[in-house]
Formats: sequence, C-alpha cells, structure tokens
Amino acid sequence: MQLPSTLLENAVAEFSKLPGIGKKTALRLVLHLLKQDTEVTTHFSEILQKMRKEIKFCQRCYNISDGTICSICANSGRQKNTICVVENIRDVIAIENTQQFNGTYHVLGGIISPLDGIGPEQLTINPLIERVKNEEVNELVFALNPNIQGDTTIYYIQKKLAKSQCIITTIARGIAFGGELEYADEMTLGKSISNRQPIQQYIK
Amino acid sequence: MQLPSTLLENAVAEFSKLPGIGKKTALRLVLHLLKQDTEVTTHFSEILQKMRKEIKFCQRCYNISDGTICSICANSGRQKNTICVVENIRDVIAIENTQQFNGTYHVLGGIISPLDGIGPEQLTINPLIERVKNEEVNELVFALNPNIQGDTTIYYIQKKLAKSQCIITTIARGIAFGGELEYADEMTLGKSISNRQPIQQYIK
Repeated sequence: MQLPSTLLENAVAEFSKLPGIGKKTALRLVLHLLKQDTEVTTHFSEILQKMRKEIKFCQRCYNISDGTICSICANSGRQKNTICVVENIRDVIAIENTQQFNGTYHVLGGIISPLDGIGPEQLTINPLIERVKNEEVNELVFALNPNIQGDTTIYYIQKKLAKSQCIITTIARGIAFGGELEYADEMTLGKSISNRQPIQQYIK
Repeated sequence: MQLPSTLLENAVAEFSKLPGIGKKTALRLVLHLLKQDTEVTTHFSEILQKMRKEIKFCQRCYNISDGTICSICANSGRQKNTICVVENIRDVIAIENTQQFNGTYHVLGGIISPLDGIGPEQLTINPLIERVKNEEVNELVFALNPNIQGDTTIYYIQKKLAKSQCIITTIARGIAFGGELEYADEMTLGKSISNRQPIQQYIK
C-alpha cells in the first residue's frame, strides 16, 4: 500500500506495531485522528505517556496500581489470608468481573515455560513464598490456564511450600456452561467425569 | 469492566474512542504498551503528534501531503488534464493501488448530503470548477460511491460545468469480478445489462 505522505506512513507503521492492528486498520485510525482537531491527538498522546510513566505495580501483589499498594490489597473488606495466584493483570480483571472472589491476588507476571526461556527467577514466585510465610495465608487458589506450563508452575510452587500449612487449590476444570459434551476434548471430558461433583453445588 | 487503576482506565478510554476499538481491545493494546519499554510509548505518541501537527493538504488536489503540493501533483509523468474526483483520501490510496490511473486527483472531502448538513460549500467543489477552467482539463472521472449522494454530487458538478468542453465520465458500475449474478441486486444487474460492453475490452 503506497501512502502519499511520509508522516502518514510513519504514523500508520506505529499503529500497526500494536497487536491485532493491521495496516488497513492502522490507516483507518490515523485518518480518523486527522479528521479530528489537533487537540484530540495531543490529548490521546499525553494520556498514554502519563499512563506509561506514572503507573506503578503493587508492592504486595504486583497488580497494576496508582500507588504503592493496589486498591484490592488496600481494601480492608477483603480476606488477606486467601490469595488467588494468576498469570497476568488481565486475569485479575476477569476474576474481579465475576464478583465471586473476595480474597487478594498475586500476579506472577507469566508462567514457567523453559521453551520461552522463562524460569522461576523471572516471575514473582519468591515474593509469593515470602507472602505465604509472613501473612498467615490459609489458602492459595491457582487460577492459571490449564496447560502444561500452568501445571508445571503449580507443581513448582507446591513443592516450595511443602512444609507450609497453607491449602493449595486450583479453579475447577470441566465442561464450560453452554458447552456441548459432543465437542469437548477427551482430556476435559475424562477429567470432568473422574472429578464429578455433588449436584447441590450447582443447583441453588 | 472494573479496572484497578485510574491511569489505566483513562488510557483504555482514550483508545476506545478510536473507531472499531472496543473496551476489551483497548485494554489489550494498553497492556501491550505497558509490557514494552517506556520509550516505545513515548515514540508512538511523538510520531502521532508530529503527524497531526505537520501534515498538510495539497493546495491543488487536497490530497494528504508532506509539502504544499502532493507527490502525485508534483509528478511530471502524470497527465494533468485528466482528473479523478474522489470523496476522500482513502479512495486515492485505493485507486493508486490498482496502478490503472495515470492522471491526477481531486479530493472533495465528502459528498453532498443534505441530511448530514453537508452542502457544496463544505466541499472543495469550487476549487475543482476553478481547476477545470484554468488547467485545460479534458476529462473528469468521477470515482464516487454509487449511491444517491454520490449521484447528486456528480449531477451538481456536471451542471456547474455545463458550459465547459470537459468530458465527464464515471467509473464502470456492474457485477464485481468473482461476484455471482444470483446474489446481485436488481439495480446493479439491470444496469449492467443495459450498459453491456463489447467483450474485447475484458479479454486481452
């Protein structure tokens, strides 16, 4: 695609670097900004830069935060002795949206994946071990994606906490609501049969 | 969707203002920027602001340009006496990509649409009339979307140029290549029969 201006071309190239944005979409976005007043673009840029420069990570759970401690950790109404361990910030947002969890979180910043060169040192596993020791944590709920890397991470942390009294659980795995048995993979269907649960839990 | 930080929320809100970007996509884009170095966001913002502030419109054809005259108008190899009239810059880019047109362009900046409050004064119609008079233009090729507003715009400009010697044409309308007759609307199919063309034009 030949563009009539280098300035336009550079702006389109910058937008295309973002995930899921191709050259055509980038051009649409840039032409949209061109249609608006100059202030719109200035404001957009300033908000982004301010966000990138000033955003902090909670010193306790590594969630995104405006201050040194995030709003979830600072909330006295939340159970501090139940920690949900997640891979990234998006998972925190997803679980918060369910309004089903009243504990605090711990964001690992990734999962152990030797193929991608990510070992336990690159993640916030040591701070998590410290938290379990110091904060009298009763339960660690792992909410990691159910794949080999996720299971490896759970196994690694479990080993590290072998001497601790803390209960380690993981979110339930099985057939999703609205899913069809016919199309479920064998692994999920098999596990959902062997881990069958009393019906009272679901019909309330 | 409850976000854990006001800075994050503002950045997501800014991205969601762009066309075709919802809140979830915006969050993905912002978290992507957060993963990168601060310089990436700074560079992105600066390129956008520079583009918005410094971009110019060609004084001759109103196409986007880095200077006062765009690269197409400045190109001596292009026929100055054939002008293709388009609605916006995206149409210029689309036609340029076909490599089938060697004339110059005129960007109207919209089409006459009384319902949206757009009359001839809001568009670059007067400069176009001036160009036809002053530049010895032989042919005006209208490449507007085939709808009522497009046809109204063509009719209006045609009336204004009634005394001129300039030939007025429009891009061919009919069944698209790869299209199926069965699914074509009656208007298109009807017109494509009444405007049938000698087969030699297509089989070369």
